[in-house]
Amino acid sequence: MEIDPRQATVDEMYRLLTTLITPRPIGWVSTRSVDGVDNLAPYSFYMGVIEANPPVVMVSTERRPDGSPKDSARNVLDTEAFGLNLVTTDLVEAMDRTSDAVGAHKDEFDLAGLDRRDATTVDVPLVAAAKATMECTLYDTMEVGDHIVIFGRIEHVIVDDELVTDGKIDVEKVDTVGRLTGSYYAKLERFQVDRPWQ
Amino acid sequence: MEIDPRQATVDEMYRLLTTLITPRPIGWVSTRSVDGVDNLAPYSFYMGVIEANPPVVMVSTERRPDGSPKDSARNVLDTEAFGLNLVTTDLVEAMDRTSDAVGAHKDEFDLAGLDRRDATTVDVPLVAAAKATMECTLYDTMEVGDHIVIFGRIEHVIVDDELVTDGKIDVEKVDTVGRLTGSYYAKLERFQVDRPWQ
Repeated sequence: MEIDPRQATVDEMYRLLTTLITPRPIGWVSTRSVDGVDNLAPYSFYMGVIEANPPVVMVSTERRPDGSPKDSARNVLDTEAFGLNLVTTDLVEAMDRTSDAVGAHKDEFDLAGLDRRDATTVDVPLVAAAKATMECTLYDTMEVGDHIVIFGRIEHVIVDDELVTDGKIDVEKVDTVGRLTGSYYAKLERFQVDRPWQ
Repeated sequence: MEIDPRQATVDEMYRLLTTLITPRPIGWVSTRSVDGVDNLAPYSFYMGVIEANPPVVMVSTERRPDGSPKDSARNVLDTEAFGLNLVTTDLVEAMDRTSDAVGAHKDEFDLAGLDRRDATTVDVPLVAAAKATMECTLYDTMEVGDHIVIFGRIEHVIVDDELVTDGKIDVEKVDTVGRLTGSYYAKLERFQVDRPWQ
């Protein structure tokens, strides 16, 4: 099957990219509006950009049909801060409840029955049950088509001791969930590639 | 465990981000130098940015200690084109052989024993055995610390009929591999989140 993006619909391209660029980490973004209303929403075009000097992540957000940013993006642009909350298998249903498809103008913490705690370096809420959180400040933005790409600088990271072995984060203990497409997610079946040729 | 990135080493931050931002899709990037030398290398900070109008992906690449771009990035900057090759379970060992850690100045197709075919819309090689490929032109770049972030516009997509059901790409048939950290990868254990609350 060959696809020319210039001839395809947005829905066809969405399905293609969300199926081929897999599995994706979930950027579960928490923000606080200037009026003090908390917001929590998952983004699936989320990635690390650089690990240090400075440590930066990106989250791509779609504008609404009227051109305005969605709640999360508006809050980040207004307050220059956001939180990232690790989505592990125990939290996937709660995370899914906070997706855009449900309750656009509600406090998603309440909607999903999630307790919150305040971040330590920025004024944003965090998911109390998340096994790891990253506190970010706005580093830069980029406009691409009708999307606003938000680049955040990581200011502080908290990792639950449950994920730590001998003082280091342990990949065998981090049971993150990957995003696929539609209603599909993926748990991790870890394996190692030995490098006998090295 | 709390981590202040300003006090952490690059290695500590790398381990943290590559363990918490998981699972990551693998951007298996193929390029051709102006001298006609083919290059193939996997990047793990790879993501979709926007699905259409225009369809754009990003790949973050590290500069060498002397400040020069690595081979893939240099080729993209010179030729304004690159390919993306889907990494499925059958190709993970071949992909791993093409990583930076091995054979920096060799033709990685030969090194990994991979046949190539030419892209149709740009002058780059593609992995013949890849079940899907995306042909991209350079859309934009961004400098963040010692990294060059490459934004590519998707010009053409080819998907093997093996991944297609009733004319559409089928998530149940796309057995991509996710990147974790170190020598760790992940196969997908797919599940669906029903949305009874909708």
